[in-house]
Parts: sequence; C-alpha cells; structure tokens
Amino acid sequence: MGFVMETLSVNKEGNLALGGVDLTEVAACFGTPAYVMDENYIRENCRVYINALNKFYDGNGLALYASKALSCKYIYRIMKEEGMGVDVVSGGELYTALAADFPAEKIYFHGNNKTDDELEFAIEKNVGRIVVDNLPELDRISAIAEKQGKNVKVLFRIKPGIDAHTHSFVQTGQIDSKFGVALETGEAEQIVKYASELKNVTPVGVHCHIGSQIFELAPFTLAAEKMMNFIGDLKDKYRIEISELNLGGGYGIKYTDEDDPIAYDKYIEAVSKVVRSVAEKRGVKLPFVIMEPGRSIVASAGLTLYTVGAVKEIPDIRTYISVDGGMGDNPRYILYQSKYQAASVTNPLGKDTKKVTIAGKCCESGDLLAEGAELPPMHAGDLLAVLATGAYNYSMASNYNRIPRPPVVMIKDGETRLAVKRESYEDLIINDL
Amino acid sequence: MGFVMETLSVNKEGNLALGGVDLTEVAACFGTPAYVMDENYIRENCRVYINALNKFYDGNGLALYASKALSCKYIYRIMKEEGMGVDVVSGGELYTALAADFPAEKIYFHGNNKTDDELEFAIEKNVGRIVVDNLPELDRISAIAEKQGKNVKVLFRIKPGIDAHTHSFVQTGQIDSKFGVALETGEAEQIVKYASELKNVTPVGVHCHIGSQIFELAPFTLAAEKMMNFIGDLKDKYRIEISELNLGGGYGIKYTDEDDPIAYDKYIEAVSKVVRSVAEKRGVKLPFVIMEPGRSIVASAGLTLYTVGAVKEIPDIRTYISVDGGMGDNPRYILYQSKYQAASVTNPLGKDTKKVTIAGKCCESGDLLAEGAELPPMHAGDLLAVLATGAYNYSMASNYNRIPRPPVVMIKDGETRLAVKRESYEDLIINDL
Repeated sequence: MGFVMETLSVNKEGNLALGGVDLTEVAACFGTPAYVMDENYIRENCRVYINALNKFYDGNGLALYASKALSCKYIYRIMKEEGMGVDVVSGGELYTALAADFPAEKIYFHGNNKTDDELEFAIEKNVGRIVVDNLPELDRISAIAEKQGKNVKVLFRIKPGIDAHTHSFVQTGQIDSKFGVALETGEAEQIVKYASELKNVTPVGVHCHIGSQIFELAPFTLAAEKMMNFIGDLKDKYRIEISELNLGGGYGIKYTDEDDPIAYDKYIEAVSKVVRSVAEKRGVKLPFVIMEPGRSIVASAGLTLYTVGAVKEIPDIRTYISVDGGMGDNPRYILYQSKYQAASVTNPLGKDTKKVTIAGKCCESGDLLAEGAELPPMHAGDLLAVLATGAYNYSMASNYNRIPRPPVVMIKDGETRLAVKRESYEDLIINDL
Repeated sequence: MGFVMETLSVNKEGNLALGGVDLTEVAACFGTPAYVMDENYIRENCRVYINALNKFYDGNGLALYASKALSCKYIYRIMKEEGMGVDVVSGGELYTALAADFPAEKIYFHGNNKTDDELEFAIEKNVGRIVVDNLPELDRISAIAEKQGKNVKVLFRIKPGIDAHTHSFVQTGQIDSKFGVALETGEAEQIVKYASELKNVTPVGVHCHIGSQIFELAPFTLAAEKMMNFIGDLKDKYRIEISELNLGGGYGIKYTDEDDPIAYDKYIEAVSKVVRSVAEKRGVKLPFVIMEPGRSIVASAGLTLYTVGAVKEIPDIRTYISVDGGMGDNPRYILYQSKYQAASVTNPLGKDTKKVTIAGKCCESGDLLAEGAELPPMHAGDLLAVLATGAYNYSMASNYNRIPRPPVVMIKDGETRLAVKRESYEDLIINDL
C-alpha cells in the first residue's frame, strides 16, 4: 500500500515529508492541528489542465479553479500566476479573490440563489461571466446591469439529465436538482432565447456540472454530447450562436487505495473528441471550452497534521485514537462517511499495523475522522497525518465547540510559509457583544 | 398543527411574532439570514431546571448550561444572571465564558481529548471542576496542578453501559464510545481509586451522559441507578466518598409535531426518586446533583429568518424553495437529516399549503434545510422562518462557500438587541496572508 499523495515521501530520518519538508518540522514550527499543502503540486495540477487544453483544443479554452474547494487569498494568487481562471459561488469568495488582486475578467460567478447584493457587487466589479441559474435571476441581472449601465456576459446552468454515479448527496445534473434549468422540459431553450432579447445581457455560453468525485469517462462524454447538441439546436431553431461551453468539474481523486481515478488529460481528450465530432455534425463553430476542476487541483496536495492525545483500547470492540482536531476542521466523515488514509508521521512505514478509529476532540460521538484506518501503534504525543484533505476541509471548517480553525501552511521549493494564520481565541469573539 | 415554538404567535397584522416582536421588523432591522431568539423563554427554561432542583432535591444541586449548544458572550451573561452553572468543552468555550465574566467556580470543563494548553488555561483560571475522561489525562491534570501549586476538584466521565435509543450518530454511554471509562470493565473504579491517592487532585464526583434528544424516562432512571450504585460500591470497597453526581443532559425537544418530549421537571422528579432510594439502600449521603441541559434551554427559543430567492417547481417531482442561507448556518439536515418545521412569516396560517423542499444557496446538492415542509405558496422576497434552530446552529455554523455567518438577535421584553454581529466579508479574510 502506497500513500495516496504523490509528493508525500519518507525521508532519511524515517519521517513523513511533504514536498521534501519533514512534517515534524512543520508541526514544531506551526503547531497542530494544521493543514499542510504542497504548493508545487497545486501548480503542477493546474498545468495538467492548461496543457491538455492546449493539446486537445489548441488553447481555445480556460480552466477555472473551483474555489469552493479551498478559498483563501493565497490560492487565488497561485491561480493568477498559473494563468487559471476561477469560479466563485458567493460574494465572500468573490471578495476574497478580488482582495488577492485576481483579475475580475477571469472570474465566473455561479450559484443557485445569488442575492441582489451579490449580483450588484459582481456586476460593479466587472466579473467576467455570470452563470445564470434561473429566469427570475436573469431578470434581476438584467435590471442591475441596466442600472449600472453595463452589459453582462452570461452563461446558463443547464441540467443535462445525467446522473453520475457517486454519493447521493453530491449528485447533480439530473432534473431533480436545485441547480439550473432542464434541457428536457424546454426550460433551457426558453431562458437562452429570452436572454438573447435582453439589452443589458449577452448570452455567450452554456454550462453543466454532472456530479462530484466521478471515476468514469462516459458521464462526461455524454454530457458534452448533449450540451453540443443543445448548442446546435439553439443555432438551428433560433439562430443563436453560443460560443462558450463550460463542462464543469467532478473529476475524481484518490482518497484511498480503493479509488482509481482516470488521468485528467484522458478525460479532456475523450471529451474533446466528442465536442469536435458533434460540432462538425451540427455545423457549429468549435466553442471556447471551460473546465472547472477544484478538488482535483488541491485535494491531493494537502494533509492535516494532528497530535495524538487519548488512546483507548476497548477490548474486542475497537481502538480509539483521539487527535487535537476533528469534525470542526474536517467534517467530511460525519457528513458523507468519506474515507481517508492516515499515517504516522514518525513511523510511516511501521509494521504491526492494526485497524483503528480516529476520533476528534469534539463533544459529539459522531466526531470521527476515519474508521478502520491502518496504523502502527500510536501513543499520546505522536504526530498523525490524515491525507488528501486539501479540498473541502479548510473551506468547510467550523468553530463547533469554539475550537479555532487551523492554519494553512504552504510548502514551496523546500520552504514553508503561512497562507492562512491559525484562528485565535480573540478571533472567536470579535463579533460577540 | 401548531408551531413547535411556544412563544411564536401570529400578531394582528397576520405576521409571525417571536416574544411579541413582529419578525418582519426584525428582518428589516437586522437583515437576513438571522438567528432570532426569545431571551425571556431561554430564562424561563433555566428556571424550570432550577425550580425542579429546589423541589426535588431541596436545592442540593446545580443545573449547568451545556454551552456547546450555543456559545457566545451574551448567553453566558444570561446564565450568570439566572444562577446557572455552565459546562464548556474546549479552551475556546472557556475563553468566551470568562470574557463574559462568568464565574470560573461554576464552570465545568469536559472533553474526551483536552490538550495540555487547555488544561493549563483551565487550572490557571480556577475552573470549578474538570471532568476527567481517562487515566493519562488524570496524570496530566495532576502534573499541571502540581506545577501551578493547586488542587483540582475532578469528576470522572463514566460509561454506564446504557444506549439510549436515538440517532446513531448521537449515541453515547455505551462501552463503544470515545468518551470516558467503562463501569463494567472496572476501569471506572480504578481511575477513581487512583485519583484518591493523588496529592493535587480531589475526586469529588462522577458523571455520565447517555445520549441526546431522548424522549423516554427509563434510560435516565436506569443511568441514575447505575451511577448511585457505583457511588455505593466506591464507599463499600474503598471508603471513597463521592459527593457529586452529574447526570449530564440529553432531554429531547420538539423539533416537529412528531416529537413528544416529556416535561423536564418530570425527568428530574423521576430521577430524584431513584437517587434517594438507592442512597438509602446503599447507605450513602444524598449527592449534590448536577444536570447539563443545553438543547432544551435554547433550541425552542430560536428560529432562523431567511429571505426566499429562487422558487423552482419541477413538475411531478418537487418544488425547491431556495433561501439566502443553508448548510453553512444550519448543517443539521445534511449532517443528520434532522427535521425542522418551517413557516411563512407574512402568511403563517396560509391555507393551500403543499410539501416543498427548502434548499440553501451553497454550491452543493445536499445543501437542504428541509424536505416535505408544509408551506403556503412562497415567492421571491418572502420571509421564511425555520423553527427551533436555537441549538447547534450558530455553534455549528461554517463559512462554507465563504458565506458570512448570520447575526444572533435576542428579543427581550418586546425589544430586540444584537448578541452576535453578522460576519463581514472583511472578517472572512482576517487571517488570510
């Protein structure tokens, strides 16, 4: 069994090292719990998408980092330097991106229920695109754009009717979804046609997102086919030219040895063939192709470093290893029973492993991080790493039990630096009266 | 069907009012989403426990507010004024309580994995009691107390081997738990005996907590019986006198019409009979009795006020009502599929209701607040209240999607005041580098 993180290794001291940096040093310097991320690996992941767009679409496209996976100023600066676009799903993500000087024109604003305040903010800041979710929202965008004397380029969130097989809580794309307008009911056609008649809005693209953590090619190529045919229909029926095709994200990553993701450029290659073939068949121009990887950019670049506290062996039942974090910093186990690989930092290759339950320090029985994790004997004070926590951990973290959120530490070229400081007790009460 | 919140009413304008205050006015003044709470009702709930302790234990006891249900400075001030004690489960909760000038001697410090930093902080601040979870922790407490030249009064978290029937994620008390030491294995006896020989620690009490949201009497009386017999055993076998019995919390509240909680003083009366009878039978003094209500103090005192945005009728499938909050401010649906009652603020008694799904604005399909909620027709801009959200909502809230956390607004004697300010976009990036 290897580690699920490619840039995690065992150094000559026998300790776990990320991006070449000994994790015992990171813990000594920044304390625990801490999110630790390999910045070079994040950048490499960006380049996989950019290179594939160059290779399979002659560069006629853009990869957007889906920043809900991990949103902080530092990550937007990385994306800017790598030539990525970003997608944001709230005023808060937009604010953070702009605070990091991310160029507004490369920001796509998503969401099933954007507020007027958010739309005003986004239009005032000239975000590149707004992805329209529904008809009343389109009217609000049009009114706000008119008030600001602007024209807003929009895409439309389409439900292509595809149900990618994954955890039921993260399915989208089928008709029973809070997101977007359906192809099959004619809603999708109707909204694009309606937009094409508005003065302050320009319909430029269509968007779908069929799910998360997907390991198959078929749902992606099927979605691309449906969306390209929709573009063809819009041209044939209404002479509306759609120049942007945003196929969303959903590329699976390796959380445990059971996961077997397809190389991301393989997805892109397979999809590009479908896009080209339908374009030719339907006589439409090749669209500008947009992808929205989030998890696949950051998840496998990060781990969470904990210190072990209480160790409880309950004979014939299980062993609980309690750490100094938990559902507050990683709610994905209690939310989705998501599986994670864990490793001892100072004894990563230790034989004599057994299956244990990793528990958090929250006052809640469900506060676990993993069940059945294979670990060598662990003792109070030992450092434990939970792997592939780079996505949807910091971004989903809470202050449950008023536990401060951990820092985000970046490792780049053998150096460590803080991306996000640890919350202090003082921070917890800044809004308390 | 009535409202699950006792102090919610419909005023003469036909709007929902909490504690007599029209919720449309609260929304106009503080915006949405917002947590809105009836302070008088919180105080009344405290008095139910205090009065019951007076009635059934001649005042020989203390009710602790379990502050993980809702922790902010304001609530600790209420508890201080009402003569309650509080329990805290982290350094952050302790810090918040002390920042509100809550008296340290009435603070009980819980947790399955307290860090050295937290223990040092708690002992330095002279918290009234530390509830010891396990043997190594006891050694750490003893060492820190010695270093600080103090003697620490402790209780012990005991697993009485009772499995109260409730949602599997919130079961505790059985032997397979990360919390405490088991009765049946002799661990519990061993830790108390060991503590009685330590110089800087005084064992004064035993504690158990058998679960959450319990609607039956039997698990509580059974736990009391086991714990009293344990006190008897300690006296008979080791001449150790235990003077405090902390029976934890777990009293169920009414989230929907399906829930049928027992009056809290009935629990206390029934338990008091068991405590007295076992005390007499075993020849031990009546202990000082401690209870830890959290949810039952605050849950039914609070609601969350939202503004409706997108409304999507998906023919033959369901209607989605999207609001301007979601799993960020109330993660209990996505975590536990917890049920909530919802009501239209301006048309609370509207006929012509139908079952709808209330969705949040997060970029996640599972971001729902309720399925099958009975509501009259709702339109964009309407105010919606989700009821009985006073516990485990603000305290579990996250900034997922970088959505700022809502304010907590208190209503007292017809006046509104802020307990916690709304987070700003600036707050979101205070720790970003």
